[in-house]
Amino acid sequence: MARYAYVNGRYVPHGEGAIHIEDRGFQFSDGVYEVVPIINDRLVDVGPHLDRLERSLSELQITPPVSRRVLELVMAELIARNGVSEGLIYMQVTRGVAPRDHKFPKGVSPTIVMTTKRVPFMSQKKLSDGVKVITIPDIRWTRCDIKTVSLLPNCMGKTKAAEAGAYEAWQVDGDGLITEGTSSNAWVVTADDKLLTRPVSHDILRGVTRQCLLDIAAEEGLAYEERAFSVETAKSAREAFTSSATSFVTPVVQIDDVRLGDGTPGPLSSRLQRWYLDYCAGRMRST
Amino acid sequence: MARYAYVNGRYVPHGEGAIHIEDRGFQFSDGVYEVVPIINDRLVDVGPHLDRLERSLSELQITPPVSRRVLELVMAELIARNGVSEGLIYMQVTRGVAPRDHKFPKGVSPTIVMTTKRVPFMSQKKLSDGVKVITIPDIRWTRCDIKTVSLLPNCMGKTKAAEAGAYEAWQVDGDGLITEGTSSNAWVVTADDKLLTRPVSHDILRGVTRQCLLDIAAEEGLAYEERAFSVETAKSAREAFTSSATSFVTPVVQIDDVRLGDGTPGPLSSRLQRWYLDYCAGRMRST
Repeated sequence: MARYAYVNGRYVPHGEGAIHIEDRGFQFSDGVYEVVPIINDRLVDVGPHLDRLERSLSELQITPPVSRRVLELVMAELIARNGVSEGLIYMQVTRGVAPRDHKFPKGVSPTIVMTTKRVPFMSQKKLSDGVKVITIPDIRWTRCDIKTVSLLPNCMGKTKAAEAGAYEAWQVDGDGLITEGTSSNAWVVTADDKLLTRPVSHDILRGVTRQCLLDIAAEEGLAYEERAFSVETAKSAREAFTSSATSFVTPVVQIDDVRLGDGTPGPLSSRLQRWYLDYCAGRMRST
Repeated sequence: MARYAYVNGRYVPHGEGAIHIEDRGFQFSDGVYEVVPIINDRLVDVGPHLDRLERSLSELQITPPVSRRVLELVMAELIARNGVSEGLIYMQVTRGVAPRDHKFPKGVSPTIVMTTKRVPFMSQKKLSDGVKVITIPDIRWTRCDIKTVSLLPNCMGKTKAAEAGAYEAWQVDGDGLITEGTSSNAWVVTADDKLLTRPVSHDILRGVTRQCLLDIAAEEGLAYEERAFSVETAKSAREAFTSSATSFVTPVVQIDDVRLGDGTPGPLSSRLQRWYLDYCAGRMRST
């Protein structure tokens, strides 16, 4: 089955998808993106993802390339062409092509690219076994709330994690408080069974999964608080997990050299994971 | 005359220069660049620029795509094909094309792109009249010494400057000290005629022009110091200027709402500019 990409209004074979060398996404990381999971032939949380895309574009004064309705139609068409029932759709919008100059050009058409990828999400070992995370200094800029492709520090952190045999790196601010993972939000469960995750600000991405988990926690009557927590708090936590649209609720069983509990996923993490996967699979609430 | 770009081993018409949609430069700003000016048919300071390119690649563990000798041959060929006697050559190297995944992939061929642009550098009004700069918070990451294409905050700052009718934005750290411009290094001349510019660290780019100006200052016996200075110091300075490979020594005559001196380029700035332009034009020293 041929794999297509959508590039500026055309469906092209994935391998032929190309953008100009003076695209500002390439020269300046002047663009934003979203990744939307597909489970059981359904896009998960597409509404919040497109809301966030619009917010990111607005923060950078990039004109949306097409209407939201057209975006949804293109997504559906690409998923159908590529026959993806479990996987993800990646979309990237940049300011467009212009002669190289730092300042935002006027009257430029934005670039839009969409690709899909099949991923056997539900059978991932990390979901059942949990993962190790390491902690690293947060070296990123001060506007991590905008989902831009300016992801080099995140890539460096993720590479450090992999080199340490870990799945993710949790980044730590100047006050010793964890901000978030390089591609996920960080959570812990305190000794008194309270869920903690850092409140939204310019320091972290407003995770769609993060918000959904907070909604589930509220509905299920779990104790939770949006509060920044330290590396020490995390290492002495009863449980921990990391969340994102494509890693769902991934239990954390080790932070740096410290094993959490008995080194297996904690009960609350596992419960939240089950709830969330049920939600993704369309077997639960429609929030 | 056709304008060519060099893309991964081929000379192609500029408008047809393209990279794949999964190039890590496009998806992750996982790449570095250099801009080398061309004056009087000569590349200016090509050695230090290629040194810095190698350093940037090394910091990010990207394999150089070709040897330095080949790079120099390609530069010469592209400049000849495009007939550029005054202007610049832009080169960008990214980690290459790989299925999207934050962590650095292994065994990937880096992407290399080179373009040229004709610019009538010597007749630029900003060199004779000076410019206004504004000051803005430095919102960038903590590794500004690596010359990456992760330039979105720089673009945002330059756009703010343009909106304020200014040429450049000088960025200010958490201690109220100026780091550098969005695409240039910042300098002031104190009341006792001492040149000040911030010392190199992870906070600023190691400007090739910056270093050359320090060398000239030393040779000419000028008083200078590599020391961070505050916005207040800058606003009460006798003179100020901003330096880069393509803006050379551009006098600063206004910072935010404060006019420096009589609002015309200061004598030391003008002298340094003349020395530096002579150097660029090959009429002076060979350092």
